[in-house]
Amino acid sequence: MSLIILKIGGSVITEKGSISKARETEIERISGEIASFKKDSDSQIILVHGAGSFGHPQAMKYKLDEGFDPKGAYLTHVSVKLLNSKVVESLNNAGAYALPVHPLSSCLLENGNIIDFQLGQIKVMLEKGIIPVLHGDVVMDRTKGASVLSGDRIIPHLAVALKASQIGAGSDVDGVLDEKDAIIRKITHFSFVDMKKNIKGSGSTDVTGGMRGKVSELLELADKGISSRIFNAYRKGVVSRFLYGEDVGTLITDK
Amino acid sequence: MSLIILKIGGSVITEKGSISKARETEIERISGEIASFKKDSDSQIILVHGAGSFGHPQAMKYKLDEGFDPKGAYLTHVSVKLLNSKVVESLNNAGAYALPVHPLSSCLLENGNIIDFQLGQIKVMLEKGIIPVLHGDVVMDRTKGASVLSGDRIIPHLAVALKASQIGAGSDVDGVLDEKDAIIRKITHFSFVDMKKNIKGSGSTDVTGGMRGKVSELLELADKGISSRIFNAYRKGVVSRFLYGEDVGTLITDK
Repeated sequence: MSLIILKIGGSVITEKGSISKARETEIERISGEIASFKKDSDSQIILVHGAGSFGHPQAMKYKLDEGFDPKGAYLTHVSVKLLNSKVVESLNNAGAYALPVHPLSSCLLENGNIIDFQLGQIKVMLEKGIIPVLHGDVVMDRTKGASVLSGDRIIPHLAVALKASQIGAGSDVDGVLDEKDAIIRKITHFSFVDMKKNIKGSGSTDVTGGMRGKVSELLELADKGISSRIFNAYRKGVVSRFLYGEDVGTLITDK
Repeated sequence: MSLIILKIGGSVITEKGSISKARETEIERISGEIASFKKDSDSQIILVHGAGSFGHPQAMKYKLDEGFDPKGAYLTHVSVKLLNSKVVESLNNAGAYALPVHPLSSCLLENGNIIDFQLGQIKVMLEKGIIPVLHGDVVMDRTKGASVLSGDRIIPHLAVALKASQIGAGSDVDGVLDEKDAIIRKITHFSFVDMKKNIKGSGSTDVTGGMRGKVSELLELADKGISSRIFNAYRKGVVSRFLYGEDVGTLITDK
């Protein structure tokens, strides 16, 4: 049984520069694309979405990256959970079965690193044809009290632990772009050495390290046999085309 | 460091016979009693609340006790999470720090029994002075797909795993009542043998086995050195009196 882990960036489903403003139309469109594919296919899907304008403003206001703040942790979690509820509701309305898995309830960090992630309930959801929907969240940390855990950092953990077949990272850019704004169709460890300096950053305000960091992380997964694609989830139909295995965006692979 | 696990029954904080109707006044009052005590005391507190008119109607409609239903599981979870959000918000508004822990995200069952419960994040919350707030929920089950896990069944698991000092079970009755409606002040294994037949059932529609079952379960914890009290959380000040160690309701102990 193949497992696809699909990331949808916060910049796709929320309004940049706002506080807690969702792009309901995009959420519905993407949910429809996922639900249609799921009806056609036996593939298991995990959806991980970013927080975007939900959570990030609260995390910044309470400086969660600088130290523990229980009120800030609470308000950040409430905000990202609200976005998650919209996504899960939209998937269920579109005819898919989806259930939320909140990292604050299921994950533990130590000095910012994941040291425990409850996966048993995710496995049962997948077996039952349900899409577990995770998200960037504030998570308890044995060293720091609490830390922000981005969706981008959840994905490699889940991909390795659950032996994902493929990862799709849907952002608001068409893929990894070179210095002339052309999509780089394929990146391997070998080709990355030369092209690294010419890669453009992500268009969105990405607190998690930009495009170069993202590619480096996905190349590590490629070493473990899990290939990824970075594509534009903001364009209609591209999530669907990714799910059906088409050659969209940038492929990151070990071959 | 002493750990108190406080259960507030769904019958206290929701309207019986309604669908998803909270008793906001009771939630605020109880939150105030908990927050005042927490300011005074170093004791760690876990709050577990029932679902009452949140979740139960959905669980019944979709017959979650008879078989797996992903839509029913989703709607039940959404409903209990809404009640949980009200409780957690109310505690934070009252000046306590509280964070939700959702069993669907953190727990796994096998044939209705808890086989895995993520506790690391709960421990960090407790160390940081935060009240983790759990609730009756629909939970993934390796055998059944999904099952309803009541708050009453979460408590013994947490009490043993986290070495609780005391348990308080706040319901809508004054304690365990005898055939003359008088409160039985103390129950031990020894006294329970004789009084068992004279114990009155819980006033609320309790899907989890009524008062006799509750006492039997708490006596098992008493054997492990964890005493409990069953008291009326619907009466003003009684939660507070329990937290401060007063002799309220019925004590269930091994001594």
